[in-house]
Amino acid sequence: MPKVVDHDARRREITGALWRLAAREGLEAASLASVAAEAGVSKGRVQHYFASRDELLAFAASALRERLGARVSARVAAAGTDPRAVVRALLAGLLPLDEEGRADALVGSAFLVRAIADPAARAQLRTGEEEILAALADGLAALPGVRDPRAEAEVLHALVGGLADSLLVERHTPDSALAVLDRHLAALG
Amino acid sequence: MPKVVDHDARRREITGALWRLAAREGLEAASLASVAAEAGVSKGRVQHYFASRDELLAFAASALRERLGARVSARVAAAGTDPRAVVRALLAGLLPLDEEGRADALVGSAFLVRAIADPAARAQLRTGEEEILAALADGLAALPGVRDPRAEAEVLHALVGGLADSLLVERHTPDSALAVLDRHLAALG
Repeated sequence: MPKVVDHDARRREITGALWRLAAREGLEAASLASVAAEAGVSKGRVQHYFASRDELLAFAASALRERLGARVSARVAAAGTDPRAVVRALLAGLLPLDEEGRADALVGSAFLVRAIADPAARAQLRTGEEEILAALADGLAALPGVRDPRAEAEVLHALVGGLADSLLVERHTPDSALAVLDRHLAALG
Repeated sequence: MPKVVDHDARRREITGALWRLAAREGLEAASLASVAAEAGVSKGRVQHYFASRDELLAFAASALRERLGARVSARVAAAGTDPRAVVRALLAGLLPLDEEGRADALVGSAFLVRAIADPAARAQLRTGEEEILAALADGLAALPGVRDPRAEAEVLHALVGGLADSLLVERHTPDSALAVLDRHLAALG
């Protein structure tokens, strides 16, 4: 079904333009018109693929979750079978440690601001966070010394959230952020 | 010098309008004109007290730091002399646990987004974070089991940063956020 593929590819092209715009100027700057301009197409063309700004943003949020999931999965797959290495890979995959991760985190922080005011965006964000917490708790359950994996997952989730902010404002480098994470992981179990 | 007092009081009134606007619509929505409208005064009147939007935002960031400092100090003073209670008070003071803290955190997260793109805002943010880290390290140095207070301060700082985000999107309640914090503090020293 080449038409469906085309449709999806076009939607992703438009989402890519939203990405660049949001990372540069914040999500609030993204309207159907400004995204069309960034993508170099007409506003009508964008409206052909997204009925409203809300629909565009919801699709972009899903795309962000997919990208984050793919990055985490790749790191976890490369980590081998040592449970501690798996947990570290999961957490490192959530941190903006390279250009791609940084662009995603910028969009992510814009979505966070949106989620504060918008219940639908908040529900979407929570679904993503629940997935992360469940994966973390699974990984932690394999560490012998961790008695309450879910509670420890909450600590680690908050820790990477704070580190991500410090990375975005360049108070931490990737190395110093990972050192904070490793310090905490070393004390676990 | 009543004139100086007036000047300062007026600047704070205008900053209060910026606060409400930023908490409601994000910092990007705050222009000299929109802040004037929110304050119920003319744009010229705002310009009398602030030469530019940047000057207004820099003043507001200082005001935010003062408010945060006052809230933390009040909690620390009420905590007594037990070193662990002092550290907990410091950390709890940084979390958006009530309406006032929430409004401040909303403005704070808007400043964080601004600091990502703006070196001057970033320098100002880092100064504030260094103050927090130094105070935390001081408090932690009084705990017998903490061997590297500065490194542990970095962990706790990241932890409250992540918890603050989860509080803003209401994934955590004040109680559940404090429970995560207490769990980590119980494992310390």
